[in-house]
Amino acid sequence: MTERLVVIGGDAAGMSAASQARRRRAADDLEIIAFERGRHTSYSACGIPYWIGGATTGPDALVARTAQEHRDHGIDLRLGTEVVAVDPERGRVRSRGPEGGEQWTEYDHLVIATGAVPIRPPVPGIDAPGVFGVQTLDDGEAVLGALDREAVRRAVVVGGGYIGVEMAEAMLRHGLEVTLVDRAPEPMSTLDPDMGMLVRDSLEGLGVHVVSGAPVREVLTGDGGWVRAVATDRAEYPADIVVLGLGVRPGTDLARDAGLPLGAHGGLLTDRAMRVRGTERIWAGGDCVEVLNLVSGALQHIALGTHANKQGRIIGTNIGGGYATFPGVVGTAVSKVCDVEIARTGLKESQARAAGLDFVTVVIESTSRAGYYPDADTMTVKMTAERGTGRLLGLQIVGGEGAAKRVDVGAVALTAKMTVQQMVDLDLGYAPPFSPVWDPVLVAARKAADAVAADIRKR
Amino acid sequence: MTERLVVIGGDAAGMSAASQARRRRAADDLEIIAFERGRHTSYSACGIPYWIGGATTGPDALVARTAQEHRDHGIDLRLGTEVVAVDPERGRVRSRGPEGGEQWTEYDHLVIATGAVPIRPPVPGIDAPGVFGVQTLDDGEAVLGALDREAVRRAVVVGGGYIGVEMAEAMLRHGLEVTLVDRAPEPMSTLDPDMGMLVRDSLEGLGVHVVSGAPVREVLTGDGGWVRAVATDRAEYPADIVVLGLGVRPGTDLARDAGLPLGAHGGLLTDRAMRVRGTERIWAGGDCVEVLNLVSGALQHIALGTHANKQGRIIGTNIGGGYATFPGVVGTAVSKVCDVEIARTGLKESQARAAGLDFVTVVIESTSRAGYYPDADTMTVKMTAERGTGRLLGLQIVGGEGAAKRVDVGAVALTAKMTVQQMVDLDLGYAPPFSPVWDPVLVAARKAADAVAADIRKR
Repeated sequence: MTERLVVIGGDAAGMSAASQARRRRAADDLEIIAFERGRHTSYSACGIPYWIGGATTGPDALVARTAQEHRDHGIDLRLGTEVVAVDPERGRVRSRGPEGGEQWTEYDHLVIATGAVPIRPPVPGIDAPGVFGVQTLDDGEAVLGALDREAVRRAVVVGGGYIGVEMAEAMLRHGLEVTLVDRAPEPMSTLDPDMGMLVRDSLEGLGVHVVSGAPVREVLTGDGGWVRAVATDRAEYPADIVVLGLGVRPGTDLARDAGLPLGAHGGLLTDRAMRVRGTERIWAGGDCVEVLNLVSGALQHIALGTHANKQGRIIGTNIGGGYATFPGVVGTAVSKVCDVEIARTGLKESQARAAGLDFVTVVIESTSRAGYYPDADTMTVKMTAERGTGRLLGLQIVGGEGAAKRVDVGAVALTAKMTVQQMVDLDLGYAPPFSPVWDPVLVAARKAADAVAADIRKR
Repeated sequence: MTERLVVIGGDAAGMSAASQARRRRAADDLEIIAFERGRHTSYSACGIPYWIGGATTGPDALVARTAQEHRDHGIDLRLGTEVVAVDPERGRVRSRGPEGGEQWTEYDHLVIATGAVPIRPPVPGIDAPGVFGVQTLDDGEAVLGALDREAVRRAVVVGGGYIGVEMAEAMLRHGLEVTLVDRAPEPMSTLDPDMGMLVRDSLEGLGVHVVSGAPVREVLTGDGGWVRAVATDRAEYPADIVVLGLGVRPGTDLARDAGLPLGAHGGLLTDRAMRVRGTERIWAGGDCVEVLNLVSGALQHIALGTHANKQGRIIGTNIGGGYATFPGVVGTAVSKVCDVEIARTGLKESQARAAGLDFVTVVIESTSRAGYYPDADTMTVKMTAERGTGRLLGLQIVGGEGAAKRVDVGAVALTAKMTVQQMVDLDLGYAPPFSPVWDPVLVAARKAADAVAADIRKR
């Protein structure tokens, strides 16, 4: 008998699950219906700041697989169709189509891939015209549309995380005066503040006016209701356009209403196979779930396309009759502001403390290439290791070309639970165009190993 | 009582050992004498091709620490002084100074860091004027001197390994017609031939005439005895200058004469602490020793500054009263030819076979950045995994910017003895400027995991 898979959400996790299931089970064995409330499937939200900044075209280029391509692969994809209720008891979802009518669809397997919802501070004026998120391709078009207005000269970006700093760069590329207003003490609060300060220096070097430690109190509007300024407790910052880059929370209203289990961060709780806890045939992946951080042992919410793709593939494999699990993350993230690359993996100091871990920390400066090789860029590397054991806990890098992807060495080492002493011996690639003879990560590991030993002696 | 440390060889391993020992023991506790037969200390031989090619200046820029700096750190450094005999029985070395006189010097600890000797095929004409090695800073000056001659228009580079391809690029940068003559079937024989073919394509795309499978039979000379051509069994290749990039062998004549233990590759055999086997107070490191390959379990000779520096530091730590060991290598190496980056780690297929390992192999193509991001370069990734277990055995990458250092992920995974299945889950950095949503290494791991499973099913 033909089973039916229903997917809620047509982006990375949902469509990876659908595609993988389709690859493993033929249409007469598994019918696949995917509901997507927007107009696009499988698009790269991470690419939107680069599209807005003009580095890449959009929106089509950001679509990895179009609705038509999915249909050609035997997926019954329904765009503009929002799922408004999930009924786990009876195994069905209620959806509202583009024409407004609602209907129930039964499922044998359900994949919840409802993504994340951009955070909007609940302050007056936040919904005014001229205030934009950068979550969907429609948001991207709206921002670009606003930038075409004649009077747009000054941008305020609210939030200093990945999206915030990337959008600050994008606004600069449009020739705007840019103010970045952030509630955290330093930009990039996924880094420790001392590393975030390096990002601030870079932003300021590019001409961005960085206002830290300043929550937004109000968005002020002017003629015709369009934004004219962003107000904090400290001052008003004139703005012809406001971009919100405040991060996201799991999009789990539907799941909560259906009585499905949510964690402390508001994300769906799943088992290793990405099955929603306590259910038999409901799966979830992507920005709407919580993931295990392998270093802290705690659950976390991380919205990132790479996890969404992996989790979708795992779900599709399991529904398709195979077996796959998602072991967890180590918290790797990379970004850049113009020529400055920013990377982190593992735990920052406050996360380590919250996990009950005590640690030593070192910060070193090195270069991306042999010192004598042209265009050798400086690089600051911070490494955190557990007291006593020397187990690597975290790695943060800010620097020029070649800085960001070096963090992958830390990601693998964290996964393997290596100590910083073991990392000193790592056989990393060396040639003058690519690294000093001691790679910056090895220099940091050496210092960290010394710091671990010094700490032991001190006790 | 003051002990005396004698170091033979003033480059990476020797001077790292001396510096580290000095850092740990004061001058009244440990006297340090270092003999160097050349004129320079602590220089980057790996930088010579880039100096010759004009990417960096030389020779001073390639010296990490000058003789004077070492002397200022309390090391009695004797340049132009060659050690001609080691007498382990009586704990002394005989040296010949710049004035020619010989004398014995007693040691309490001896560090042998005699480096490597460039391979010269024993063919007629190989020592003719116009034929150059690229091992020492003096070699670099000699090549640059020859390139200043008016009539130099055509270069033949002999050898298609790291030095060979780097020198081919350097000769191109001088505007020469370049022929690369190599005995191996494809350039870069540290890669599998199918990956070496990509390097050949790059070289040919740059205008290098690549002659493979052609051992040099003779170097022909013309007017005044200067080279005029290189002959193989196949043809004669006109040359106004010939550069030898044939790799090196351990420089262990002195050690052999002293009766110290050498391995199958001609390198000194040491224990984990870098002490020469069977001795109590003789240590060796750098290009003159054999190292354990952690993947094959076999000893190997690898001449690379990064190992030399690490081993020197380990020796100096141990002589200095600390404790450190060198666990081995996984065979990582990176290089580039103009914009094409070349990287490898672990075992190539023939090495795996020689180690008694059976394997499956996959080759994938991907890009260095998100496909829509500007300047996304293609990248070919080859991954080898053990049959049955799926343990990673090797990783090779040829591609554009960002290709080479990606091999570090493989280096860490090899060290941690990860399987390709485990690698699929690695939390590698993702953002559009740095990687597709599935990093090329993860794509390869995914395919390799599938290949391992398919192989198991087939059995």
